[in-house]
Amino acid sequence: MSEEQSGIFPRGEANPYGQYFVGQSYLNMLSTEQVTIGNVTFEPGCRNNWHIHHAEEGGGQILLVTAGRGWYQEWGEPARALAAGDVVNVPANVKHWHGAAKDSWFSHLAVEVPATGASNEWCEPVSDEEYGRL
Amino acid sequence: MSEEQSGIFPRGEANPYGQYFVGQSYLNMLSTEQVTIGNVTFEPGCRNNWHIHHAEEGGGQILLVTAGRGWYQEWGEPARALAAGDVVNVPANVKHWHGAAKDSWFSHLAVEVPATGASNEWCEPVSDEEYGRL
Repeated sequence: MSEEQSGIFPRGEANPYGQYFVGQSYLNMLSTEQVTIGNVTFEPGCRNNWHIHHAEEGGGQILLVTAGRGWYQEWGEPARALAAGDVVNVPANVKHWHGAAKDSWFSHLAVEVPATGASNEWCEPVSDEEYGRL
Repeated sequence: MSEEQSGIFPRGEANPYGQYFVGQSYLNMLSTEQVTIGNVTFEPGCRNNWHIHHAEEGGGQILLVTAGRGWYQEWGEPARALAAGDVVNVPANVKHWHGAAKDSWFSHLAVEVPATGASNEWCEPVSDEEYGRL
């Protein structure tokens, strides 16, 4: 079984938010009631732009890594290497990005933390230079 | 790799709620902030007692099956067979149980849906006769 096919949860279709990503990603919504949960799959080298989950109360995301290897980075902090079994509590109102390693597919569940006054702000891409240094 | 070891997320220690289960289970808390998420692993034949996630607003759980095969059943309904990749939205205030198949380990993430006025009510075990008919 290739790494591409090793995801537990169905990969779904091309990510409708693809304009905010470098490279190809896929999104499959697993829960759209109670708590919103999506399965996000990144091809090797794919990552989302720097972004912020704004919220007045609550908010942010929890990332549960289910396959492959990737990265999570908060603005001004070193990038954190991720592998299957890792969990990231992404706080509200913190600029960050996540995505695949150069040489690995990467899948995580994204659990949307319930919030009041929530909105997402998409910022600049993670440049090839920044990403290339990882 | 045996099925026992195939879980993505660490299995953790013996489940502190084991008194409400038939058979051996394990619990590893993956997130205790933002939204509470636990990884629950059941040995073959293990299941939790009938139980109810009471809530005034919100509440219930979302089960994300990560390994093995098992069952979910709501009171008065037929049991639903589960396998890796399946998702169950467990409503608040509905009596139900979940657990492993007779011949398979079973792991799911349990996402606690935020609630007001939440409490858990543990009821009778799923009898060997009921379980044996599955």
